[in-house]
Amino acid sequence: MQDAAATHQDDLLRYMDGLGRQARDAGTVMARASTRAKDQALLALARRLRQAGPALQQANQRDTDAAQAAGLSAPMVDRLRLTPKVIETVALGCEQLAAMPDPIGEITGVRRRPTGISVGQMRVPLGVFGMIYESRPNVTIEAASLAIKSGNACILRGGSEAIHSNLALWRLVQDALAEAGLPTQAVQLVETTDRAAVGRLIAMPEHVDVIIPRGGKGLIERISREARVPVIKHLDGNCHTYVDAQVDLEQALVVTDNAKTQKYSPCNATESLLVHAASAPHFLPRLGMLFAAKGVEMRCCPRARAVLADVPGLNLADASEADWAEEYLAPIISVKVVDALDEAIAHINRYGSHHTDAILTTDHPSAMRFLREVDSASVMVNASTRFADGFEYGLGAEIGISTDKFHARGPVGLEGLTSMKWVVLGQGEVRA
Amino acid sequence: MQDAAATHQDDLLRYMDGLGRQARDAGTVMARASTRAKDQALLALARRLRQAGPALQQANQRDTDAAQAAGLSAPMVDRLRLTPKVIETVALGCEQLAAMPDPIGEITGVRRRPTGISVGQMRVPLGVFGMIYESRPNVTIEAASLAIKSGNACILRGGSEAIHSNLALWRLVQDALAEAGLPTQAVQLVETTDRAAVGRLIAMPEHVDVIIPRGGKGLIERISREARVPVIKHLDGNCHTYVDAQVDLEQALVVTDNAKTQKYSPCNATESLLVHAASAPHFLPRLGMLFAAKGVEMRCCPRARAVLADVPGLNLADASEADWAEEYLAPIISVKVVDALDEAIAHINRYGSHHTDAILTTDHPSAMRFLREVDSASVMVNASTRFADGFEYGLGAEIGISTDKFHARGPVGLEGLTSMKWVVLGQGEVRA
Repeated sequence: MQDAAATHQDDLLRYMDGLGRQARDAGTVMARASTRAKDQALLALARRLRQAGPALQQANQRDTDAAQAAGLSAPMVDRLRLTPKVIETVALGCEQLAAMPDPIGEITGVRRRPTGISVGQMRVPLGVFGMIYESRPNVTIEAASLAIKSGNACILRGGSEAIHSNLALWRLVQDALAEAGLPTQAVQLVETTDRAAVGRLIAMPEHVDVIIPRGGKGLIERISREARVPVIKHLDGNCHTYVDAQVDLEQALVVTDNAKTQKYSPCNATESLLVHAASAPHFLPRLGMLFAAKGVEMRCCPRARAVLADVPGLNLADASEADWAEEYLAPIISVKVVDALDEAIAHINRYGSHHTDAILTTDHPSAMRFLREVDSASVMVNASTRFADGFEYGLGAEIGISTDKFHARGPVGLEGLTSMKWVVLGQGEVRA
Repeated sequence: MQDAAATHQDDLLRYMDGLGRQARDAGTVMARASTRAKDQALLALARRLRQAGPALQQANQRDTDAAQAAGLSAPMVDRLRLTPKVIETVALGCEQLAAMPDPIGEITGVRRRPTGISVGQMRVPLGVFGMIYESRPNVTIEAASLAIKSGNACILRGGSEAIHSNLALWRLVQDALAEAGLPTQAVQLVETTDRAAVGRLIAMPEHVDVIIPRGGKGLIERISREARVPVIKHLDGNCHTYVDAQVDLEQALVVTDNAKTQKYSPCNATESLLVHAASAPHFLPRLGMLFAAKGVEMRCCPRARAVLADVPGLNLADASEADWAEEYLAPIISVKVVDALDEAIAHINRYGSHHTDAILTTDHPSAMRFLREVDSASVMVNASTRFADGFEYGLGAEIGISTDKFHARGPVGLEGLTSMKWVVLGQGEVRA
């Protein structure tokens, strides 16, 4: 048994190293691929996705049947489904990427130096990224298309429950790359569902430049802890909306309602509401009526609770210390009355997750201080936290959202998969 | 003994955690400090450095005496010395930083989206950086001044052989911060020389956002391997100069000579010379005469050796496979004749260290292909690789040089100590 296990382990390492080497080689070719070839591959992929039909559906059916047989919950099985709508969305995404300007080769900030040389920066691909994700097979196409456009190679490791769907989608990617004359090994899929493959993928700095995990907090924490390469990671989204002393009440009601209730599950939904004491008596009871109608539970500090006590049908509770740090992803919101902007900023920086926080105010100095001093990836004035999203920001596509400060912060699009190298243009200058 | 060791370990962890917490708190204050206060602290530091006189000299004397007593080599002892010239250089550096624009608060790329919101990015400090360095005590001032200007807090861990000098310099920093009304804990120095302190400093993601090591390759590799936070690291500088087929021979001689011999020890000195076969017969013998006069050993491929065979007094040797990857930091250069630009690019990407590489050419397509396809932090046309430096690039100051692609690449100045957060300016917009 021991020997068999060891042999299996050796085979796995060899397999992963092989993927890594092939990805590195393909990445070199992708880095200098023409914009035309990359866009051609994206358009071919869109066309092939729309034409895939029964073969893709059969592969997907195998996954959803197995998931149902394994007793997965209906929402879990739904996430696996490649419905015509999901296919159309990812195909459209490929076409949108093809229409975007090529980020690679952009040269910026070239300035002449006193020595005579001109110094600037050129945008280049990172090289190879590893993507680790769960359930949704559409991530296979999203990651592949972002890799193609950004001139990177990638190694994809999807969830074992979606393996047949991922394999079928990956074959379409391979065909699209070949059609455009690009190396098919630019996008590789880990074909084994062995979990040790993930351990190896995140520990090959010689082959992989960055890891992007998408999934539950447990998965992401473990990957961050064990990775030997940088990780673009997204942990909690404990987002705040702060209603200032001077505020357009009608607007604040609409925005706060949208930030909390437009959808409960996204990471950019507001989980905690801070209200200045001067606004609380006017604002909270009216918001309470909206939330009572929608069944949103309000977990309150004593002062907020007192103001909300008379709202009929409202689900009110006392907030515990733990509530201030909680990401509910549910029809629950924590509510606290504060006496000053300072207190709101300090509360957000202490309990928040540095994801997305908004101030609703008509006071310019308050808006500017909030923008400067709240230490979050996205800071907003008079807008719903739900806007924190790569598409809404105009990035064209989103590979993930980073809650780190290093390299990329907040929604990560094509640029997050690139880096800037220095270019120096001289006419024979030497160092004195 | 066990208990005493365990207690000591506990004390050390408590001490380091304390530094970390204080740095985090001070970093919050520094992030919103006014430009005026930060510049005032830098100017006060410059003044105090120039006025420090005997107290600083006595502290430095203790270190150099101890180093001599311990039998350190003369160059090692020299690195420790805070001569009047070293003091003047760091004081001037503080004044230059004070004169630079404040990077913090810069807002760029604000664009209106179809939804009505405006989206842009604001430059903010990373938070807290840890600096780990050896010998040269002037790094204490360089790191402290960069932290102050960039609105970060920092924790400094210098070499044990410079501890008295570092403590004395650090006190000047503390006084300068206090004079400007800034928190003295914004710049902390690890006062113990216990090596376990480094192990803790690089593993406190809750308190420290990034580690910047400066020192030998062994130190940097160990830190990169064990760090639990991002590391801005500089490994080898195996830099290439490639002399193309079409080239201004006189210019190429001057530039290649400068790139190799202007100084042998810097990481941006050229270590490997590639010459197109069409240029080799004209270029190499003349370069060989220059190098013979300067005593530079040339380790050659067979073709280069044949061309150089008749140069009188030249120290010629056969290059081994290992020579192509070697960083000599000495009067030695490896030399290879290539048949095409492609071969030069492939050689550099394979054997180089992705630090700095230059092409000398008059052919525009060759220049552009070299710029695009050489995967190095700095790529140059018709300039000496010795220009790869923060000051030469106009960064004003340099905290280090990164051989990574993630976050910062090449010379790292103030901007490498910052990150961009998203700002969203709305008028009550909600997500549809």
